[in-house]
Amino acid sequence: MQKTMKAMVYYGENDLRFEDRPVPQILEPTDAIIKLTTTTICGTDLGIMKGKNPEIEATAKEKQGNFNGRILGHEGVGIVEEVGSAVKNFKKGDKVIISCVSRCGTCENCQKQLNAHCMNGGGWIMGYMIDGTQAEYVRTPFADTSLYHLPNNLAEDVAVLLSDALPTSHEIGVQYGDVQPGDTVAIVGAGPIGMAALLTAQLYSPSEIIVVDMDENRLQMALEMGATKVINSAKEEAIASILKMTNGRGVDCAIEAVGIPQTWDVCQHIVKEGGNIANVGVHGQAVSFALEKLWIKNLKITTGLVNANTTDMLLKTCCSGKLPLDKMITHYFKFNELEQAYKVFKNAADEKAMKVIINC
Amino acid sequence: MQKTMKAMVYYGENDLRFEDRPVPQILEPTDAIIKLTTTTICGTDLGIMKGKNPEIEATAKEKQGNFNGRILGHEGVGIVEEVGSAVKNFKKGDKVIISCVSRCGTCENCQKQLNAHCMNGGGWIMGYMIDGTQAEYVRTPFADTSLYHLPNNLAEDVAVLLSDALPTSHEIGVQYGDVQPGDTVAIVGAGPIGMAALLTAQLYSPSEIIVVDMDENRLQMALEMGATKVINSAKEEAIASILKMTNGRGVDCAIEAVGIPQTWDVCQHIVKEGGNIANVGVHGQAVSFALEKLWIKNLKITTGLVNANTTDMLLKTCCSGKLPLDKMITHYFKFNELEQAYKVFKNAADEKAMKVIINC
Amino acid sequence: MQKTMKAMVYYGENDLRFEDRPVPQILEPTDAIIKLTTTTICGTDLGIMKGKNPEIEATAKEKQGNFNGRILGHEGVGIVEEVGSAVKNFKKGDKVIISCVSRCGTCENCQKQLNAHCMNGGGWIMGYMIDGTQAEYVRTPFADTSLYHLPNNLAEDVAVLLSDALPTSHEIGVQYGDVQPGDTVAIVGAGPIGMAALLTAQLYSPSEIIVVDMDENRLQMALEMGATKVINSAKEEAIASILKMTNGRGVDCAIEAVGIPQTWDVCQHIVKEGGNIANVGVHGQAVSFALEKLWIKNLKITTGLVNANTTDMLLKTCCSGKLPLDKMITHYFKFNELEQAYKVFKNAADEKAMKVIINC
Amino acid sequence: MQKTMKAMVYYGENDLRFEDRPVPQILEPTDAIIKLTTTTICGTDLGIMKGKNPEIEATAKEKQGNFNGRILGHEGVGIVEEVGSAVKNFKKGDKVIISCVSRCGTCENCQKQLNAHCMNGGGWIMGYMIDGTQAEYVRTPFADTSLYHLPNNLAEDVAVLLSDALPTSHEIGVQYGDVQPGDTVAIVGAGPIGMAALLTAQLYSPSEIIVVDMDENRLQMALEMGATKVINSAKEEAIASILKMTNGRGVDCAIEAVGIPQTWDVCQHIVKEGGNIANVGVHGQAVSFALEKLWIKNLKITTGLVNANTTDMLLKTCCSGKLPLDKMITHYFKFNELEQAYKVFKNAADEKAMKVIINC
Repeated sequence: MQKTMKAMVYYGENDLRFEDRPVPQILEPTDAIIKLTTTTICGTDLGIMKGKNPEIEATAKEKQGNFNGRILGHEGVGIVEEVGSAVKNFKKGDKVIISCVSRCGTCENCQKQLNAHCMNGGGWIMGYMIDGTQAEYVRTPFADTSLYHLPNNLAEDVAVLLSDALPTSHEIGVQYGDVQPGDTVAIVGAGPIGMAALLTAQLYSPSEIIVVDMDENRLQMALEMGATKVINSAKEEAIASILKMTNGRGVDCAIEAVGIPQTWDVCQHIVKEGGNIANVGVHGQAVSFALEKLWIKNLKITTGLVNANTTDMLLKTCCSGKLPLDKMITHYFKFNELEQAYKVFKNAADEKAMKVIINC
Repeated sequence: MQKTMKAMVYYGENDLRFEDRPVPQILEPTDAIIKLTTTTICGTDLGIMKGKNPEIEATAKEKQGNFNGRILGHEGVGIVEEVGSAVKNFKKGDKVIISCVSRCGTCENCQKQLNAHCMNGGGWIMGYMIDGTQAEYVRTPFADTSLYHLPNNLAEDVAVLLSDALPTSHEIGVQYGDVQPGDTVAIVGAGPIGMAALLTAQLYSPSEIIVVDMDENRLQMALEMGATKVINSAKEEAIASILKMTNGRGVDCAIEAVGIPQTWDVCQHIVKEGGNIANVGVHGQAVSFALEKLWIKNLKITTGLVNANTTDMLLKTCCSGKLPLDKMITHYFKFNELEQAYKVFKNAADEKAMKVIINC
Repeated sequence: MQKTMKAMVYYGENDLRFEDRPVPQILEPTDAIIKLTTTTICGTDLGIMKGKNPEIEATAKEKQGNFNGRILGHEGVGIVEEVGSAVKNFKKGDKVIISCVSRCGTCENCQKQLNAHCMNGGGWIMGYMIDGTQAEYVRTPFADTSLYHLPNNLAEDVAVLLSDALPTSHEIGVQYGDVQPGDTVAIVGAGPIGMAALLTAQLYSPSEIIVVDMDENRLQMALEMGATKVINSAKEEAIASILKMTNGRGVDCAIEAVGIPQTWDVCQHIVKEGGNIANVGVHGQAVSFALEKLWIKNLKITTGLVNANTTDMLLKTCCSGKLPLDKMITHYFKFNELEQAYKVFKNAADEKAMKVIINC
Repeated sequence: MQKTMKAMVYYGENDLRFEDRPVPQILEPTDAIIKLTTTTICGTDLGIMKGKNPEIEATAKEKQGNFNGRILGHEGVGIVEEVGSAVKNFKKGDKVIISCVSRCGTCENCQKQLNAHCMNGGGWIMGYMIDGTQAEYVRTPFADTSLYHLPNNLAEDVAVLLSDALPTSHEIGVQYGDVQPGDTVAIVGAGPIGMAALLTAQLYSPSEIIVVDMDENRLQMALEMGATKVINSAKEEAIASILKMTNGRGVDCAIEAVGIPQTWDVCQHIVKEGGNIANVGVHGQAVSFALEKLWIKNLKITTGLVNANTTDMLLKTCCSGKLPLDKMITHYFKFNELEQAYKVFKNAADEKAMKVIINC
């Protein structure tokens, strides 16, 4: 008889069910099965719940003829339960951090470290194209390249932020934005990604970090986490304020951490000549790009999904105490309270929630 | 009595006059006066003529109360007639190439090689904010950093392309676009900038260069100058054709060399994940940026005005015979035929004109 | 009964035997067995033969208690005979190029593209720590990351240079040496590595390439393959000549392609301030490093073993006709003439040999 | 009658005289005269005093026929007394930091930011080829590119470290050594340059910084300034200890901050594959370079004199409080106590001296 487990399953728009599902099994020699000890919820999970990713159902129907639900979640820490025959770096009993990006390590894109676009079926697939981590067990493809050993001295609650939030904001925000010592940086959006950008930007010692959001509580958190200035864009005009703060020059780097036309627009109008705009936000519509003003400004604008090629470095950096990630965690839940955790995370502003941690 | 000279002067929309003007004089210790021996016409000069740059009159009126014409031209080769007291690298009689970008070499931006945005009154100013090179003499500010010695073995007709066309397409197109050996590159627009991008891209040995234009004659020239494939976008759908040519993958680098929404749109839809879009075109209006599709693609998009920090290298490269620039030159005129040269260049398609050379 | 095959086996100093050996078998799920169609001999193979690598016997004895010979060769093209259960990118019948570097793709070093130092037993192992390619069949570990599909339009004789010579000289010589358009480059040593550096340097359009060797025939070949100047260091003083050729300035990049103190010494004294020395040669003893003169010169000096992370790009570049590799091939042999091939390659100067190709 | 001033003048080996000299005057339109308010002594000044730089006398005799002393010092903060006619960025009364490197900003080397090797008579010249800053007044050539405005909120005692110590260790140690977040860094030598490397390395958040010296007091200071581990190489074997600390792997980056064969040797044997050795020390003799072991290790080794192209950034970083430079200052003297300051600095170990500040 097949063993079962509890899992948070997406069935369609606003139809999430916390229910029994079969425990996953090894399918490929490069797979591992992980027993989860900690997981969390990402803004992307809420997006799926709200029906923003109909490709989930569509792809399932196309591939297997029907869609019988998808376990959500692409972040997690756990213990290796079983490994496939080709797995070399992990064994049963190892404590691991699961990367949100699975990578084969062998295709053209993985060989140039563009793991987000793995051409052998990897990339962001967990909790999206295959079952994810909001469950008691998860199957992780390409285990050797997609798991990280959890060091003894790193708390699990903090480690789970290395699955997605931290590498995403670091690679797509801070690295693509080329943050340098002495720079003035603006981070537009103070949700978990903006906050993780705020923390990881400080690894490169910019002189100023200006954080923009409409939530006073989050701005307060930003100040505690290293922002040198904050702007409440519900109360003041962000573009004008930032230009004023920078003597009309603008910032060296603007990090877009929301994903709507308004926040893009702020970014494109506050960057100085020779500066960078790093878009991290997931956008649902096209934006207007003021090339008639910006063609001359020697800008670099970047987009992207995390490659998780700095996860290892961030892990070391967390261990050396340089990233006070615990400040990002606002709520704790037990695994059987997962529905409650969703409710709190959905009402993040009222609940003053940033990252909610689910301990299994 | 003040000496006079002939010059092509802009007075307002469609009002160019080939007339007598006073010979310019040294104003600052860092100036030089150059007697022109070769000049040319740029697409930007046509833009000014058509009234696209009303800031010319506006700035003049603001600074000096009136506007009494501006000598056009920011490209030229000539002989040093006189140098200011602080000029160290040039002396009377030296043959020089004039850079379209003047740079103080001392401000914050010049010190980080962002010469296009010189903060001491440099940048692109000649034939725009101050009198230019379509004249018998020109005053060049910041002579030490804005002139280049013309080597004996380099023809003047070719050397004049080093004033603007070549460094612009190389720096803003090829370098910002990060063209690498083995790459597939698309160049959208086969005017002088697109052609110069085609030549300078080959310095980095891409495997494929696809050139897009609507002018069959220019596409033919592109094939002769190294394009591996051409697409006539008047006859076929450029996006679909390029995707087909690249097995649906798209190109590593797209260089926008026109400056209109349609060509931008081609560029943003033909670049593969991890690729680059280098915008060189001068745009007159905002464009639609498909962030809802592109946020995930790990793209780098760049804009910019030339810094002329590769002019010296390009000069060496021309001298070593690696850039067959002479293929870009289609017409020759004497200086007193400058009005005729403008007519031909304005009707470039009918006249099959690419670069027109004016010898003084 | 075990199938056998012919192979060139190293038993100790000056003890090579062309003899029957068992056909290799899959040992790991990531292995492949390749039937060789083309192989070649590398200078390193001669080094092993001469007894320069006693670690071969030592390691074998340490691991398995005895040493019963090692099949030489780390270069080859062939047909996939069999693949392990975890191999995804290759199947029986595929024509492949074998990389001299095996890489797991999952360890810390492979994940940062430092494949030469694979920590899961990869790196340079074939024909060294495990049996190699001078045989009818070879077992290749980590097949997915260590083989390349041979394109139809690429000749095997040329393709076999992609196993080692070409990527080694490109990555460790040209890329580490940061060869740029307009540069003056010196290549010290005109053996196969020096010649491959000469070819791949031209992908980046340097203005001058000076080749130094003591063999007049090789210098003549260098001129035919793109050198702009050659120096016979048996007849003239290389350092003085190069300084004279460069107006006393020195070169932007010196590539050491021999591996002895004298050639290192030439390199360290011919590089201009801000320049690079890229050491590709395999050295057998320490050298004197003139830090008392060079501490002030803002030099970059690099060393290294090939990572084979540009093999794919070089392959594309070969296919687009930009690398006339066939010029490097001087001799052809049948597989059963392998002993004769060794004789010719050992007496390269007299035989005017550069690369010798063995077709199976 | 010519005005005179006090200055510390070098006349030959161990012959320094604190005596009256004429106040310097503007010689070139790009000069400025600075009235010093703060200066300091560098290890290089001691080297000159000890007779290590006979080129000082030799060059003077060659150029002007005789040598009548050289005012030492290449570090200083002061007030602009007078500027030449071509100086744009500074005026009488401005408070400035003097860079130890003078740069024309116009030559080939300055245009590629290799200011240390300015070809128009700049580079390190002050207190060496021309009179320096250990005086009441100094003439600074190329004032526009060689001075920095002193911000109001930066203490002079700290600002004077921006003349040399800080940019030298940052550019030639930390930047050339490519220190990255998560790295393990070793700094060999805990004098002023090593300490400044320790501080500026932290701008990039390495996980571990190991400092090696033989002076227990300096190692104690290093721990207070951010070292995670220290090694007293008088008491333990540095190479073995560092390899043990790093599980036999070695460090990502070794910074040589002494300039003798022994410290070079430590560096070359503690760097892991793919790592960097950044030599900052001024060497007086050749060293042995273990290429027979290191040819395979994919190392990058750099040397150099400071270009001062990060001085501006470091200045901003100091102002934002990220560099606790005051910890480096151990002694204060009045200008007329300059001889006493030299005595203390010469006996740095006994006096527990790091940086000695002289206020005028």
